[in-house]
Amino acid sequence: MNGMGEETGFEVVIVVPKRRRKEEGDEMEKNDCVEFLVRELKKAGLIVERFRGVPAEFLKVAAPMIILGHAAAELQLKKLTYIGMELQFEWDMVEAFVRQPDGSLFSWYERYSCFRHLLYGIVNKTDSNIALKYDDKEVNYEKNKSLLKMLEIEGVVKQVFPLHDEARRKQLLRKWALNWLDFTWQPIDEIYSYFGSKIATYFSFLGMYTRWLFFPAAFGLATQLVDFGRMQFLVLPSFFVFVISWAVFFFQFWKRKNSALLARWGINYSLHDCKEMASDANEFNYVDPVKNKFYSSRPIEKTSIQADEWCGILRKVKNNAIVVFGIICLQLPFELAYAHLYNITQIEVLRYLLTAAYLIAIQYYTRIGGKVAVSLIKCENNQGEDSSAASLVYKVFGLYFMQSYIGLFYHAVVYRNIASLRKLLIQRLIVSQVLENLIENSIPYVTYNYKKYMALHKKKYDVGSPMAKNVCLSTRVEKEYLKPSYSASIGANLEDGLFDDYLELALQFGMIMMFACAFPPIFCFATLNNLTEIRADALKLLAMLRRPVPRASATIGAWLNIFQFLIVMAICTNSLLLICLYDQEGKWRIEPGLAAILLIEHILLFVKFGFSHFVPEEPAWVRVNRLRNGAQARDLYSKQLLRSITKFEHKGD
Amino acid sequence: MNGMGEETGFEVVIVVPKRRRKEEGDEMEKNDCVEFLVRELKKAGLIVERFRGVPAEFLKVAAPMIILGHAAAELQLKKLTYIGMELQFEWDMVEAFVRQPDGSLFSWYERYSCFRHLLYGIVNKTDSNIALKYDDKEVNYEKNKSLLKMLEIEGVVKQVFPLHDEARRKQLLRKWALNWLDFTWQPIDEIYSYFGSKIATYFSFLGMYTRWLFFPAAFGLATQLVDFGRMQFLVLPSFFVFVISWAVFFFQFWKRKNSALLARWGINYSLHDCKEMASDANEFNYVDPVKNKFYSSRPIEKTSIQADEWCGILRKVKNNAIVVFGIICLQLPFELAYAHLYNITQIEVLRYLLTAAYLIAIQYYTRIGGKVAVSLIKCENNQGEDSSAASLVYKVFGLYFMQSYIGLFYHAVVYRNIASLRKLLIQRLIVSQVLENLIENSIPYVTYNYKKYMALHKKKYDVGSPMAKNVCLSTRVEKEYLKPSYSASIGANLEDGLFDDYLELALQFGMIMMFACAFPPIFCFATLNNLTEIRADALKLLAMLRRPVPRASATIGAWLNIFQFLIVMAICTNSLLLICLYDQEGKWRIEPGLAAILLIEHILLFVKFGFSHFVPEEPAWVRVNRLRNGAQARDLYSKQLLRSITKFEHKGD
Repeated sequence: MNGMGEETGFEVVIVVPKRRRKEEGDEMEKNDCVEFLVRELKKAGLIVERFRGVPAEFLKVAAPMIILGHAAAELQLKKLTYIGMELQFEWDMVEAFVRQPDGSLFSWYERYSCFRHLLYGIVNKTDSNIALKYDDKEVNYEKNKSLLKMLEIEGVVKQVFPLHDEARRKQLLRKWALNWLDFTWQPIDEIYSYFGSKIATYFSFLGMYTRWLFFPAAFGLATQLVDFGRMQFLVLPSFFVFVISWAVFFFQFWKRKNSALLARWGINYSLHDCKEMASDANEFNYVDPVKNKFYSSRPIEKTSIQADEWCGILRKVKNNAIVVFGIICLQLPFELAYAHLYNITQIEVLRYLLTAAYLIAIQYYTRIGGKVAVSLIKCENNQGEDSSAASLVYKVFGLYFMQSYIGLFYHAVVYRNIASLRKLLIQRLIVSQVLENLIENSIPYVTYNYKKYMALHKKKYDVGSPMAKNVCLSTRVEKEYLKPSYSASIGANLEDGLFDDYLELALQFGMIMMFACAFPPIFCFATLNNLTEIRADALKLLAMLRRPVPRASATIGAWLNIFQFLIVMAICTNSLLLICLYDQEGKWRIEPGLAAILLIEHILLFVKFGFSHFVPEEPAWVRVNRLRNGAQARDLYSKQLLRSITKFEHKGD
Repeated sequence: MNGMGEETGFEVVIVVPKRRRKEEGDEMEKNDCVEFLVRELKKAGLIVERFRGVPAEFLKVAAPMIILGHAAAELQLKKLTYIGMELQFEWDMVEAFVRQPDGSLFSWYERYSCFRHLLYGIVNKTDSNIALKYDDKEVNYEKNKSLLKMLEIEGVVKQVFPLHDEARRKQLLRKWALNWLDFTWQPIDEIYSYFGSKIATYFSFLGMYTRWLFFPAAFGLATQLVDFGRMQFLVLPSFFVFVISWAVFFFQFWKRKNSALLARWGINYSLHDCKEMASDANEFNYVDPVKNKFYSSRPIEKTSIQADEWCGILRKVKNNAIVVFGIICLQLPFELAYAHLYNITQIEVLRYLLTAAYLIAIQYYTRIGGKVAVSLIKCENNQGEDSSAASLVYKVFGLYFMQSYIGLFYHAVVYRNIASLRKLLIQRLIVSQVLENLIENSIPYVTYNYKKYMALHKKKYDVGSPMAKNVCLSTRVEKEYLKPSYSASIGANLEDGLFDDYLELALQFGMIMMFACAFPPIFCFATLNNLTEIRADALKLLAMLRRPVPRASATIGAWLNIFQFLIVMAICTNSLLLICLYDQEGKWRIEPGLAAILLIEHILLFVKFGFSHFVPEEPAWVRVNRLRNGAQARDLYSKQLLRSITKFEHKGD
């Protein structure tokens, strides 16, 4: 049973504890929880394979296509059709729907949603409660309750997680994570079909960012290596202008690339937004689509929705005010105190002690901050999970922003010591990135090995049989069970591990952009770092962690706004840095040089906000395709639709 | 025939010249152009009333509802249905469509489109050309050509224009233009149903703007009248912050109001955009919706569309560069020369002469600039008329921006004479606004009277009959024919008279915002001016001009971006003004005060660009209604739609 037949498409595994002994006999087994679960799963049309591993017992679940299709229809899954409209999925009209780029009908996200629907959709449809046994405990399976959810609450089912597909995982390892020849190329479509849109978007962004980074890295290196003679004083300002324009261009082109990706994957993101609202709208007690028509139902609703909206906005403003207040009044003095103490301490040992104390303190601070942010978000009425996640991202980023940059600002403005600022920058970038990469990649490995050791160790003492001596984790499923999952450090149920990866990227971007003029070659470090980051993240996902649960979002979401904000900050900070550089004596006079810098700053700010008017966010070919299909669909079927509406109206009257 | 039965709904008039005599007899009349036209119009189901007026002969045209309905179906007009989806209009399923707020089926814009379709849709469907007579000339009515268009080219039909509806016009006059009691209230829905969405949007904007102006006007007056004692030095900066926040709030709330208006009028503006693209897409030779499916047709198209897009962007950049270059190299020196000469001239008479010469010169300059802008736009491939109009607005505004403000900047920065700047501001604002209002309202009146005089005068000499002595313009239609139409001063076929009205508003907004700190009470002048402007514009539209041709757009379009740009400019210029005010000696030192101003500037810029993240542009209730309806429609009819698509697919295979 081990290792065999695993490749036939078992995609989800349910973990249950091993029962103590099997001596109770056959009539006991009938009411046994796990037996019952297996029977119900099989009744639902799923293929179940059960086997006892070393740490626990596993139920591997696979589903034939037709079962998934029916589940999708039950879920009222919206899917893109060939006429460019998203419609509810119907199994018997399957040929109307657009296939994935790899030819399959469902994306991994859709398939996993169907799986979840199938697993959690098993409810007690009989009229009475069923009494189930688990070891010695009695478990009550109430009517109209979900079996799996009940078992999870009772602790019978330990975990439900998606399984890696071994063949595709190995192929991805070979083609992507261990492909050292082509540095920035990645098989995005394969990543999409294996990991889902959110992770594929991250890697697509990371790849494009790294590729674009080569330009400022080359310029940055040139500023250091080439002697520009009499034009030397123009080098830094022109580097400043170049870097800002580079960033503005990059993000506009990233938006274009993102919408091209969405088109290729057949994802209509605006509609996703629409679904959320539609489900949201149901809360407003919308009863009958015919009787209270377009206008009649509005006046009452309008005021209540408007009140809701303003309450929501006020609550959001209040929460953000709390966060800003907390950061400025608690974190800022602390960070400044550390930066100041570090500077006035002369003894090296004390400095190390200080830094250690600081690092421990910010660990706690960040954790508390994250908890506060999560609890603040709970009392906002965000529309849908996406919006909550975005709100969390903004709040937590505020924290990290202060933590990462305030010390640098302190150096730049108060001490005006460019040399020490540079040293600090390199130190921060290298230490933080190297440390983070190490932690990121070693923690999963260590925890995996620890868990493995514990499982085997326990086994040895527990059973004491002759088999126990050469026990080992022979199957893939057992190994995956012991691997950690891809989870975020903060707000686990809103975000997955991408949160930390994006955070790392954003902090790096802020560092290199905001202090670009202080040390241009910093872009080279960032480039090198990102090249390794791509491979390290790929390896982490493919080899060190469980297969992540797919998520629907297919843009970089709130992070885009954060990157944009960092560009604006970079315009201001670089101007300040340039002023500091040119005004060593502290005269602060607006002489031609300084006036020029202020002028450049304003022009750049202007370019930043005006550029998007010139280059649209959606490439024309994507737009043409999308709109044309929509219009054609409407035109083709408008008569039919109209007929059904008018019929409906007559019946309603 | 005159004055009688005019109220029965004649909405369009066709003007033909009076024929010389009626002595040719009956058999000539058969092939007469006008007779033929009347017969064809009647054949198309229209009601035609023909009558000889003093200056020309008029064919008044009305259409029964059913004829308009069939025309709308032929036009494939998209109309909002009760399920929140826009579908092609069908006359026999009329009850599926949402009615206008006043209960009628079509909006004025839709009705006029149908009229135009009916009038210009009369084509020669016979197999041969038809020879028609007009006085002595022979006119050839070729097959498959539009009759009316041919007659217009031949000069037989002088004009086709919409007629005022006397009853509703008088009602609007009473309730709106001559309602002096409630200053800012306007019957927007009635204006919408009489003039169409574009004009109603303008008045809605003007009303809201005027109402909001009361706040800064009050504050501005207070800064002048109240003595703040020791806090006096804080008054101007706080006024600056207040005014900018006011403007940011105002425009965000205007966007919300605009989308609420769109929802009330049942206009789906994003779809309007979609229609344009769909018609645009047809140019890309999209042949068969079934054979070349979603993916297959893409690769070839993608490159061509992408090439087109980049060519378009480059051409736009080139054109804008030409405009900017023209403005900076030609207009700027000229304006500066005038400002400088005006300042150094001591003799009053010379000043007047100089100003007169300047005014004549800028008249020519503006006219040439407008022509250049129009010709530049022609070689851009703008998508649809809206986008061309926006492009024109940006280019022409650049011209006016330089013209209106550069002299003021010159005073503010070079002379730093706040007193003379104030004098100049008041002078400009009052003179320009009063002059413009005078010209705006008197030119139509004068031209009308001149035309009337000419028509009567000509008549007297022409006929010489005893009747001619007491000839007068007795009918409304004749009067309207002599009234000027509502047309723009620049780019007549892209914009209507609203262009000039918006331009006036934008220039005023720029003046009061950019120099707010120089003279706070300027907001009072603007408020007073706008109060009269509402009534004056209403009177102009109702009494002085022909009924304007309705236009589809229902937002303030490109002007919104211009207003936003002016806010950003205002942040910068007011900072500069404050620095000038506080730094009378010209030390230009960044002392606490100046650093504070720079800080305020940056914070305000930040607020300007961050604010829209907090308050969404579309009120939640509009969004909920829109999306819910869309989602419900899809859910209700998705099965039906799917069935038809799959059927289609099978046929195609």
